Amino acid sequence: MADLYLALLHHPVYDKNGAIVTTAVTNMDVHDIGRLARTFDVRAFYVATPVPTLHRLVERIIRHWETGAGAVYNETRKEALALVRLAHDLDAAIADIERETGRLPKLVATSAREGAGRLSCAALRRRLGADGPPELLVFGTGWGLTTEVLARVDDVLEPIRGTSGYNHLSVRSAAAIILDRLRHDR
Amino acid sequence: MADLYLALLHHPVYDKNGAIVTTAVTNMDVHDIGRLARTFDVRAFYVATPVPTLHRLVERIIRHWETGAGAVYNETRKEALALVRLAHDLDAAIADIERETGRLPKLVATSAREGAGRLSCAALRRRLGADGPPELLVFGTGWGLTTEVLARVDDVLEPIRGTSGYNHLSVRSAAAIILDRLRHDR
Repeated sequence: MADLYLALLHHPVYDKNGAIVTTAVTNMDVHDIGRLARTFDVRAFYVATPVPTLHRLVERIIRHWETGAGAVYNETRKEALALVRLAHDLDAAIADIERETGRLPKLVATSAREGAGRLSCAALRRRLGADGPPELLVFGTGWGLTTEVLARVDDVLEPIRGTSGYNHLSVRSAAAIILDRLRHDR
Repeated sequence: MADLYLALLHHPVYDKNGAIVTTAVTNMDVHDIGRLARTFDVRAFYVATPVPTLHRLVERIIRHWETGAGAVYNETRKEALALVRLAHDLDAAIADIERETGRLPKLVATSAREGAGRLSCAALRRRLGADGPPELLVFGTGWGLTTEVLARVDDVLEPIRGTSGYNHLSVRSAAAIILDRLRHDR
């Protein structure tokens, strides 16, 4: 079984006008995606931001639930946050995975947009079942990952299509659905 | 095709000590589940709380994105929030559905806990494909729906099991996964 990692990039991503920006870290993203990571046997979840103040914020959230008052109040959060790792950017996450596994991860970006040659969830699921390199699933914030990021990854995952043609889910919802499609036996 | 409705109950639900409480409405729940509803052809999403102040809060959120500054800033939110309806409690949601469809909905509760006779997502999916009564999928907040609610529903849906045995997802994540399992062709 290949190792699965997640990264949530806060830079470089687009804002609604197509400008490249750095988004703020959202507390709920850390908690929801941390819990998803714990549920679906993800090895680690990188929260990537170049902003030092936001590193301190995330560290404080983790510490609160790990050893602070939160550790007693809610043990299941502690377990989920144990998988959360801070990173400066995508390259730092890649370097960390290489250090941990001895192999460079395959990079799989997620996008709400259609495009040529998208990787299906079924195909990624098969790769995860084989003894290949680790897979790093990359999520964007704001209005999505920049073309610069999409151009450097190995694959872009197919977008989540519902039944209505509307494709504007939160990154939290998209991560939930993708992980379930990758891991759940149907 | 049967109509699908969602309700998110803020009362009666358990807190972590098993006391019956009323939880606060979370802004992110309204947005994330509203978007899910829009994506997966849900007819309406009831945010149920008996607290008048919280009704006003949700009304303000909806108004902001519907006709306020938000309507220009982000049209896709407006579309999602158009499906959100305020309700005092579960009975008010049921009455509204009966008014709209002429039929009493089947009540399907969700729970993170295992139990006898749980309804599978596959079985509910088949019911939704037939020409039966509307189905109202009921989610709890806090530490989950009370036994009083679970005792009055027609069915309780099987819990989301990941691959690790950990079953502490946010209600936002659970709703995302359940709707995808009910609607997505695989």
